[in-house]
Formats: sequence, structure tokens, C-alpha cells
Amino acid sequence: MNNPKKPSSVDSAQKSKYTAMENISQASAKNVQNFRKKQPSVASLVQGILSGNTSCLSRAITLIESTNPEHAHKANEIITSCLENTKPTIRIGITGIPGVGKSTFIESFGNYLTRLGKKVAVLAIDPSSSLSGGSILGDKTRMEELVKNPNAYVRPSATGNTLGGVARKTRDTIVLCEACGFDILIIETVGVGQNEIAVDRMVDFFLLLQIAGAGDALQGIKRGIMEMAEAILITKADGDGLAAAQLAKTTYCKALGLFPARKSGWIPITATCSALTQDGIPELWQTICAYHIHTKQNGYFETKRTEQKEYWLLETIDEQLKSNFYNHPKIQSLLAATKKAVQKEEISPFAAAQMLLNKYLE
Amino acid sequence: MNNPKKPSSVDSAQKSKYTAMENISQASAKNVQNFRKKQPSVASLVQGILSGNTSCLSRAITLIESTNPEHAHKANEIITSCLENTKPTIRIGITGIPGVGKSTFIESFGNYLTRLGKKVAVLAIDPSSSLSGGSILGDKTRMEELVKNPNAYVRPSATGNTLGGVARKTRDTIVLCEACGFDILIIETVGVGQNEIAVDRMVDFFLLLQIAGAGDALQGIKRGIMEMAEAILITKADGDGLAAAQLAKTTYCKALGLFPARKSGWIPITATCSALTQDGIPELWQTICAYHIHTKQNGYFETKRTEQKEYWLLETIDEQLKSNFYNHPKIQSLLAATKKAVQKEEISPFAAAQMLLNKYLE
Repeated sequence: MNNPKKPSSVDSAQKSKYTAMENISQASAKNVQNFRKKQPSVASLVQGILSGNTSCLSRAITLIESTNPEHAHKANEIITSCLENTKPTIRIGITGIPGVGKSTFIESFGNYLTRLGKKVAVLAIDPSSSLSGGSILGDKTRMEELVKNPNAYVRPSATGNTLGGVARKTRDTIVLCEACGFDILIIETVGVGQNEIAVDRMVDFFLLLQIAGAGDALQGIKRGIMEMAEAILITKADGDGLAAAQLAKTTYCKALGLFPARKSGWIPITATCSALTQDGIPELWQTICAYHIHTKQNGYFETKRTEQKEYWLLETIDEQLKSNFYNHPKIQSLLAATKKAVQKEEISPFAAAQMLLNKYLE
Repeated sequence: MNNPKKPSSVDSAQKSKYTAMENISQASAKNVQNFRKKQPSVASLVQGILSGNTSCLSRAITLIESTNPEHAHKANEIITSCLENTKPTIRIGITGIPGVGKSTFIESFGNYLTRLGKKVAVLAIDPSSSLSGGSILGDKTRMEELVKNPNAYVRPSATGNTLGGVARKTRDTIVLCEACGFDILIIETVGVGQNEIAVDRMVDFFLLLQIAGAGDALQGIKRGIMEMAEAILITKADGDGLAAAQLAKTTYCKALGLFPARKSGWIPITATCSALTQDGIPELWQTICAYHIHTKQNGYFETKRTEQKEYWLLETIDEQLKSNFYNHPKIQSLLAATKKAVQKEEISPFAAAQMLLNKYLE
């Protein structure tokens, strides 16, 4: 191949010098290419993560998110190594309906925590993001300041079709972030119900962001989510919105009072906040610290983390068993007709299920 | 063998007469024995059920409840035949914590319905009954009058270890009762959470019985159950209890107002009743009829029944897949150690699940 930079006519010494330079430049280009193409070794990624290198962290998370089986194998090795290097952290789940101001709040809260000397990682669970075009964290620029903050790490939502798949990737990512030295993990999700259960099963403290609405109706949030939340924070409590936010706070406080006592012994907090004025942000952190001390003392903190590990073990088995069944060619060819027969009452749902299971096990 | 009734000395004619009598009596005894021992044929049971014979109904339900595979096979044939002979019915679920007066209420309500010319069957879902000694319907005498009522049929809870198993038996029993001519099916359960979901998935109208408590706290009932109920009825609204019942009614009414709108378009009703004075019993029936008309008109009635059939198909598959997995000898020998390894963070829950699944599929 001709190198356009190579002069057309040179003396012998000059020629050999150019050849040497060419060789060097080719070699270094190859190095760069190799660095880009070749996956770094598991050992080097683990070493990088443990020394706080976020480039290595990002590359390892990419392996977790990959659908390539070889990558999955490497990812498992990295996770196992990182599991051996865990340290005390606080995992915070944050949810709220679209428009509640989640990103703005997380940016304020995250920057506040880094000013206290904490290292903060922000992840998201949003299995619908590939469909909705990424309603949360898809656009990193929504947290402009936090992204640039050297003590913060913001990772957009893992993509995937199933909540289980996305949840698994997020939970494995938490392990890597914690091994990488992050003290506080923030897991964001949208308030649609199913996602919240997944988030609740991977965090220590669950925060529900709400917005003041018309009247005192609870704004489009499922009751189950309120039952999970350790705190409800009414956002946009500033300027003209202050009075409405305070009214909403009272309503939510009353509604929470109707709920039964928590296993944690914690009485959920209702408060207001403003990402604009920073009002309520330090108080929230005090609440989370109080919860942390409370649950560490009564043992609930460890109990919950233990239960969460078992939950993900059993949940993954369950999901995989179903996935194997429904993706089996025999079942795929029979399911639609079987459902129709059940609907027409030609066969009972139970007999139909048994028939499909017999075909599957044949 | 000697027959003690046979005289020791007789003439020849007499003797032959005795022998003939003996043969007849032996034959008829054999018939009775056969009738008791031998299962009647599927065809005869189906014929009996379709003609409203409750002895045949009871025998067929016993087949449904049997763990003998041959019985299960016969039960399936009977159910399939009965499915072809369905007619319009109303299925009502009734729940409430122990002490709320479920049996007394169902006796009053059931007898009221039969006076309107309805045929009423009462079934129960209570997977814990074998442990608790049968907290509901276990003792039929708790509904003394209803049991004697010729237009009512009361069947104690099917026994079983799993909710899924008991639910399946109950749902199949509903099919048989409906084919047997019962217009109104009442499915009773205790207010413990998981049972209610199963009942909600097999009834058209779900009624929550509540008792007036101290203050205005919602009495030990899960929020999810309130979200399912089409009506909440405060029991024991008579004599000294009347004022407290009316106060409780107001509290529940307010609490329900905080809940989001139903898919059915139905606004849940809160009312009081007394099994003693019969106050509120006719009004409840009017409410159920209003709900029936409302959901028949907007199509929700059929939608819900369609969804229920699919729910039981998928739920049965799910339960069976899990049961096959966890009862597999390989899994039984590995599960405890694997859980321990996950707890000690020697392996991630996801990697552990994959390991178990690989062993299972080997």
C-alpha cells in the first residue's frame, strides 16, 4: 500500500529513516486498534475497578449488558471478583411519575452528597426505555453537572425487553460500582408499578417523589408503591408551588397513617423539597442517615439485604424456567390455539396447562 | 362360611327356599357394596350433575379433590362435559379477617337468595385449613340452616398444601356447581392476602367484610384487598355496635376515595349490615345486581372472565414449572448450599441461578 506522506524520491539513509518511522506509526496505530478492539483481560478490568478507574468500570458494565455469551462469561468472573471486595454502602431507590422532576432532583441531591465527600453512582431501571426512546437517564445531558462531577458516575439505563433482564444487569452493576469505591448508589425508575418492586428488592431506602396536584387526590401512583416507600418527598416546593406542596404533604402524611406498621419499625416520613432552592435536600439526607442507623441497630438492614439476595436467586430461576418454556418451539406452535380453546371453554385452564406441560416434557 | 340366620335343620324344599333367599340377599348386598365401592361412570355422574343431583355433584367434587391419577383423569372428563353446559351465573367472592362473622353473614345472605328463588352454592379457599384445623367451612354446622336448605349447597374447603392446588380444585368445582344448576356461587376465604388474589381471579364480584374497630384505623386488612373489593360491608351493625359500624363505614369510604378509578368503571360501595336484623342484606343484593348490569353493559363482565381463564392457564403452567424444578433430586441436593453461597457473596444470585438451571437441564 502507498503511503501518501512518503516522499517519492529519497536517498538511502533518508529512506531507511522513513521506513523506521512508518513501522513505528503502524505499530502504534495497531496498538490503538488493539486497545479498542480487544477486550481488556478480566484481571486488568478487576484491578482497574478496584482502584477506582471509571473507564474500566464502564467497560465492565458494557460486558454485563452484552448479549454475547463470551462477554457474559467474562462479566460473571468480574462480578465474582468484585463481590469479594464489597464495602459498606447505602443504596437508595428513587421513583416518581414522569414530570415530577426526578433528574433535576437527583442532580441536586447527587451534587449535595459529593460536597459531603461521598462518591455517588446513579443507575436506572427502565425496561421500557428502548420503546419510549429513553424516558429516564437516556439523555445524560439532563444531569449535566452531575455527569461532569469527578465524584459522581452516571450510567444510563441498561436496555432489554424484560424487567428481569434489566433488573439483573442493574443489580450486577451495583456490585461493580460498589467495588469501584462508590459509597452511595442511586437507582432511578419511573412510577409504573412493576419496576418499583424490582427497585425495592435492590435498595436499602426507597424514596417516592410526588408532585402537588389538584385537590387532595393521590396523584396516579399505585398504593403498593406508597407501601414500599420509606419517605415521600413533594417536589417543586418553591415560589407559587409552595402552598400546594405543603397541602399535598399533609394529604400524603394522612394517607400513610392508614397503612399498617412496617417490618423495619420505621415510620415513613413525608416532606417537601425544592431542587431550585435546595430546601429539603439536607433534611432528606438526615432522614436517610437516621433510617440507616435505625435499621443497622435493629438488624433490619442486614435482614433486608439477605432477603434481597434470595429474592433475586429465586426470581431469576422463575423467569428462566418460564422463558425456556414459552420459547420452546412446541409451546410456541401450540400456545395460541390452546388459549383459544380455553376461552371457548372447550377445555379447562388446568387441563390445558397440563396438556402443554406434557408436550414440553415429552 | 356359616350363616347364623340359616336354620340348622330343614326339609329339602325349605332348604332350597332358604338357599334362594340367601342368594338374593347376597346379590343385593353385593350391589350395595358395588355401589359404594365402585366409582359410578363418568357418563352417569355427568348426567346426574346436569339433572341437578347434588349426590352426583359431591361424588364428582371428591374426584376433583382426589390425589389418585385415575380419579384426576375422570375428573377432567367430567369437567370438560360440564364446561359444554355452562349457563349465566354470578360468582361472588367474600373475604374478611377471622371474627368478622363470615359464616353468619353467608348463612343470612344465602338463605335470603334462596327465598328469591335462586340456587346458591358456597365453596371455600383455605389452603391453611389442614394446619389450622379448618378455620372456614371446615365445620359445616356453622351454617346449619343453609346446609339444610334444599336450594343451597355448602362444600367445605378442598384440602391441599399449595394455594394453587386448592384454587384449581375450587375453580373446577365452580364449573360443576354451575352445570348442576346453581345460579349464584359464593367463594369464601380468610383475609390473609394471597388467598384473595386467587379468589379475585375466579369471581365476578368481590366483597370485603369488615368489622368496626377502635378509632379509624383500617383493621388489619391489606391495602391490596381493598383495591380489589367491589364493596366493603361493615358487619355487626346492630344494637350497641351500630354507631361504631357507621363510623367505620365513613372511614372506609374516605379511604376508598383515595384509590384510583377501576378498570370496570365501578365505584366501590361502602355499607353496613347485620346478620341479626337482616339490615343491609337486600341492599347488598341490589348492589351486586347493579354491578352485574353495569359490567354486562360495558363489556367488563366478559373481559374479566376471559382474563381469568388465561390467568389460570398461565398460573398453572408457572406453578408446575417451579414445582418440577424444586422437586428435582439434583436441585433438592444443591439448593441449600447454593443459597448459603449467595448469602456469603461467594457468587451472585444470577450466576447461582444459572448454575442451578444448567444442572437441572443436564
